[in-house]
Amino acid sequence: MNNIKYYLDRVAEIFAEEQFVFEPHELYEPIDYTLRLGGKRIRPTLLLAANGLFGGNEEQVRDAALGIETFHNFTLLHDDLMDRSPLRRGQPTVYTKWGDNAAILSGDTMFALAWRYFLRQPSPRLQEILQCFNETAIEVCEGQQKDMNFENMTLDQVSLADYMDMIRQKTAVLLAGALKIGALYAGAPQSETTKLYDFGIHTGLAFQIQDDLLDGYGDTAVFGKKTGQDIRDNKKSYLPLAALKLGSAEQKKELAALFSAKDNMDEDKKVRRVLELYNTIGLRATLEKAIDEEFRKAKEKLDAINVAETLKKPLREMMETLNGRKK
Amino acid sequence: MNNIKYYLDRVAEIFAEEQFVFEPHELYEPIDYTLRLGGKRIRPTLLLAANGLFGGNEEQVRDAALGIETFHNFTLLHDDLMDRSPLRRGQPTVYTKWGDNAAILSGDTMFALAWRYFLRQPSPRLQEILQCFNETAIEVCEGQQKDMNFENMTLDQVSLADYMDMIRQKTAVLLAGALKIGALYAGAPQSETTKLYDFGIHTGLAFQIQDDLLDGYGDTAVFGKKTGQDIRDNKKSYLPLAALKLGSAEQKKELAALFSAKDNMDEDKKVRRVLELYNTIGLRATLEKAIDEEFRKAKEKLDAINVAETLKKPLREMMETLNGRKK
Repeated sequence: MNNIKYYLDRVAEIFAEEQFVFEPHELYEPIDYTLRLGGKRIRPTLLLAANGLFGGNEEQVRDAALGIETFHNFTLLHDDLMDRSPLRRGQPTVYTKWGDNAAILSGDTMFALAWRYFLRQPSPRLQEILQCFNETAIEVCEGQQKDMNFENMTLDQVSLADYMDMIRQKTAVLLAGALKIGALYAGAPQSETTKLYDFGIHTGLAFQIQDDLLDGYGDTAVFGKKTGQDIRDNKKSYLPLAALKLGSAEQKKELAALFSAKDNMDEDKKVRRVLELYNTIGLRATLEKAIDEEFRKAKEKLDAINVAETLKKPLREMMETLNGRKK
Repeated sequence: MNNIKYYLDRVAEIFAEEQFVFEPHELYEPIDYTLRLGGKRIRPTLLLAANGLFGGNEEQVRDAALGIETFHNFTLLHDDLMDRSPLRRGQPTVYTKWGDNAAILSGDTMFALAWRYFLRQPSPRLQEILQCFNETAIEVCEGQQKDMNFENMTLDQVSLADYMDMIRQKTAVLLAGALKIGALYAGAPQSETTKLYDFGIHTGLAFQIQDDLLDGYGDTAVFGKKTGQDIRDNKKSYLPLAALKLGSAEQKKELAALFSAKDNMDEDKKVRRVLELYNTIGLRATLEKAIDEEFRKAKEKLDAINVAETLKKPLREMMETLNGRKK
């Protein structure tokens, strides 16, 4: 019986074994750089663990694990370019290091490399597996577009339901897709892959709301990012959207004004005032409740999966790790 | 027995029937715009014709035809952004109309939509077909990178062999891949798909050298582009690279100087002088010979394919149309 550490280590090994630099090196160096930056490797780990849950053959999903992480890193690479984010995992992003065109083309190539990995391994369910991957990819693009649309909208034009729909597509479906693909390779029946997919959706939603909470309330030293960056960016995250739902008329009005304030306002003062409003409304507890609720639903789905309890241990550990995270 | 017009019309019908706008419309409108701009639709036409060559079922390749053209248009969309080309087919390019981020994300989505088309249709040879598509996609990315590398090199740093390798990847492999995929769906044996692939490579090379020739010697009114644009852009096309191979030491020196001249030189004067040098060296005849040679090799491959001569008519017509083109 495995535990989640086993799968995390296995994923680290798989990436260490793999070569990412080919010719022309101008194309592949940014790819190698991106894939070697590390990160939590959550998606390939979930894919392997889901495969193990249904007694799959680990060698059969090695390439799919590479494929799902390569795809994820492709989306980060292009997102960083579109969002003009200078840093990723504390290191300069590809467009700052090699320029916009390298970021575009190396990203495109990573999407194709993800496919190369997925296409290496035959499977009687190949078409179904690849469709699952591709429909997930399309949803991730749609989620990113919705996120970009929010930037051009005022706070009161975005509802909490719109936001949940956006993070479901941008973040949750890829966790869910990774799990489902791992299970499909192991020959799991549709009833079970559906539960596992939903487990991934709720885990992903919990993960993203946690991210929003950490931006407002995280310990900077542990979280690794400056607290309040979302507030500085006027980002329509779960925090202000919940505040707009729960606050008094006066609080809503002030918050809307703060979130449409331009560069002429003192940024630190703005962050302090917004956090004061969040505290008065009691948002920390609201978000913690929302996170617990998503983890509860995720657990419910995992509980319902029809395999021996001992086999579920790695995924339960993963959920606990994500639930307890401070960064 | 069909002719090439039959396949061209069929492709036009397939695109007219298809819907490309979904939600969020900010993501799909640039895709619809790009796919409706038209163009020659050479790749899907070749795919259908190759399928017909081996007696395939036309309905079975409808989606692959959509997929190959969607992929091609994705590469054009991102290339136009990277090259900062304001116009495509006489219309504003996506990045000029909707901005860089829309061009990046709508392009990414088009790549995924191409996959959606390819994944719709089951086939006993699905893995082989998809691998052919994906390896082609990777080569196209590599070719684009090589083309971008040439921009940062001086004329004498690029050889004609490097150039041929670049246009093979950037242009020819996609024609070859389209043909091979059409044939694979029809169940053609490997010996025949290889010949067809090579037919596509030589046709694609001929097509690109023609493009280079037309830039120097095309009739502006017919070609639709201003003659000499490649010269203005210091582009390492077949013309200057062949000149560097065939010219005298003095001519080479002058040409190298002209191709490294910066904005301070009168552009029209530069174009006139470069064309004079081309004429003295006799490049028009050189390129026409190179084009004929590629078409000859293409014809040789088509001749060798083991099917009834009457079935080859559409591909012969296509080759003749491309050979005789003035734009």
